[in-house]
Amino acid sequence: MKLIIRSSAISRRNLLSTLAALAAVPSLLLFTDAQAQTDPLPSWNNGPAKQAIIELVKVTTDKASPNFVAPEARIATLDQDGTTWVSHPMYTQVMYCLERVPAVVAKKPELKNVEPFKTVLSGNREAMAKLSMKDLEKILAVTLTGMTVDEFRAEVTKWIATAKHPRWDRLYTELTYQPMLEVMRYLRANGYKTYIVTGGGQDFVRVYSERVYGIPPEQVVGTAGGVKYGYDTSGKPILTKEPKLLLNDNNTGKPEGIHLMIGARPIIAFGNSTGDRQMLEYTKAGDGARLALLVLHDDAQREYAYGPAQGLPDTKVGTFTQALYDEAKKDGWIVISMRNDWKRIFAFE
Amino acid sequence: MKLIIRSSAISRRNLLSTLAALAAVPSLLLFTDAQAQTDPLPSWNNGPAKQAIIELVKVTTDKASPNFVAPEARIATLDQDGTTWVSHPMYTQVMYCLERVPAVVAKKPELKNVEPFKTVLSGNREAMAKLSMKDLEKILAVTLTGMTVDEFRAEVTKWIATAKHPRWDRLYTELTYQPMLEVMRYLRANGYKTYIVTGGGQDFVRVYSERVYGIPPEQVVGTAGGVKYGYDTSGKPILTKEPKLLLNDNNTGKPEGIHLMIGARPIIAFGNSTGDRQMLEYTKAGDGARLALLVLHDDAQREYAYGPAQGLPDTKVGTFTQALYDEAKKDGWIVISMRNDWKRIFAFE
Repeated sequence: MKLIIRSSAISRRNLLSTLAALAAVPSLLLFTDAQAQTDPLPSWNNGPAKQAIIELVKVTTDKASPNFVAPEARIATLDQDGTTWVSHPMYTQVMYCLERVPAVVAKKPELKNVEPFKTVLSGNREAMAKLSMKDLEKILAVTLTGMTVDEFRAEVTKWIATAKHPRWDRLYTELTYQPMLEVMRYLRANGYKTYIVTGGGQDFVRVYSERVYGIPPEQVVGTAGGVKYGYDTSGKPILTKEPKLLLNDNNTGKPEGIHLMIGARPIIAFGNSTGDRQMLEYTKAGDGARLALLVLHDDAQREYAYGPAQGLPDTKVGTFTQALYDEAKKDGWIVISMRNDWKRIFAFE
Repeated sequence: MKLIIRSSAISRRNLLSTLAALAAVPSLLLFTDAQAQTDPLPSWNNGPAKQAIIELVKVTTDKASPNFVAPEARIATLDQDGTTWVSHPMYTQVMYCLERVPAVVAKKPELKNVEPFKTVLSGNREAMAKLSMKDLEKILAVTLTGMTVDEFRAEVTKWIATAKHPRWDRLYTELTYQPMLEVMRYLRANGYKTYIVTGGGQDFVRVYSERVYGIPPEQVVGTAGGVKYGYDTSGKPILTKEPKLLLNDNNTGKPEGIHLMIGARPIIAFGNSTGDRQMLEYTKAGDGARLALLVLHDDAQREYAYGPAQGLPDTKVGTFTQALYDEAKKDGWIVISMRNDWKRIFAFE
């Protein structure tokens, strides 16, 4: 921008207004610059999803807006698997459980020749893929319970620092979605408290949530088993993980868990599968401005493609049915197309 | 303080040092003033309890201290009944349940001539005092479950705004202990997250915790029943309070509940009865500096006196046994004497 002012052509009044206009120029430029520099969601393409998120934040944080929400009521809940990080071909926590089996069998050799442990120890992926839900439950029971909460935390800390995803050969924690990390930061910068509300294990996710998502342990709501207070041989108090389910944080368990752990209804909620349906319904049913969003995995090239909504391949891991898609469209939820809405998926890209 | 300077008696060098000294005077005065003005615990008498709290905050927040605790790990847990507010002659929530009986019977007239409702409706205090634990459970069940969480919140909000304590004829929320309100503020000002960890109902306490204690709903851990997700006749999602106990937040339930809801061990914890024992043990068993404190009600004149520790009268409401007292002394917990440690008990005094 170039401005040439010939002083001879300017009366005093004109001069004043021209100066006023000039004064406005740098701040306008700065404003545009600042806008560009501080796009809070740079990994999102401009589109209805990005617009809806920014609009919701705007109307709930502007004191002059009829939809203003007091800071203490600004609650955002996000599912984890398939919403904030990759969950295919298998949930990360299930990978942890399978990979823990050798260590568990080393301590309990009587399991060595017993199914399903025998199959897991064989390393035969084809046979492992055929394990039943009941088999899986047995594996989860021995790898997620029976130890103290401190022992479990130490084991997960060690595993998550080294275990890698077979497709990308990268740490699972690197496979978090950059657009969703931006959303969490953006919401927090606007006074929102961000919560992970996951069908995964609460104790598992809490190990890395602060470091990976900036979400402290107490803001992770997940499937939770009971713990039992007792004393070790030296008389020191310990908490032992019990094979007793307290909260199955899936489906109706999500709003139920939100009530138990947060005690307030979210203003904005993100999910990606039928397990998130009730959380999104519950969120949208609140007064004022509310936003419900679903990540649709329609990008086989950069990540995965599964539904079966919209003719995408069917899956048992993170199922997004056509019925869920139809409910979303009918009730004004936002479906985030991974392919179209996300400019970049991972930070390492 | 008065300073008279005769200029004739002052050499240049003397003048400079005198001016320097003078310059120091106001700031010293200001410093002393500021110290006096900002005593963080003005309702506490100087004594071992006040000193221990201030010392703990000092060593856990000073970056140069070997006991420094990162802000995100600064967790403080406080029991409610008998620790942050009056719980005699009866727990406030039980008063709520008893006073709700007429409204419940109006909706369910079939209960009118059935015990224990008949006795409660009679208003005969002597007969009511004789109700068994099983009777009480029946009363809690009909007054705390069966409604939506929104209905329950509305009922408690209305009650707590008007119901008064028989002895002081004041709102129950006015019967919070001023020294403990100061402790909560002081801890928060030093980066601590303050939690109520109560045997009382989580949904009940959450109604007023923000207003009364400055503690948001998500930082109230209490006895919790299940809720059930469903839809009302118009199809709107609702959560209904179920007569199913999820967490009995007393005794071992306190550290278990802290793990479930917070996922980290407290640095400092306050209680007043045997129901807090395991929470305090768990707190003290952590690494680094930890502090466990028990409020001893030894002030019949200003509040109540009960134990039976130290020969105080026995009670079923907030029992502080001699065994608990002995454990506290043996393990370095602090016993707060209401009579000696608290200069003022209530804000209205």
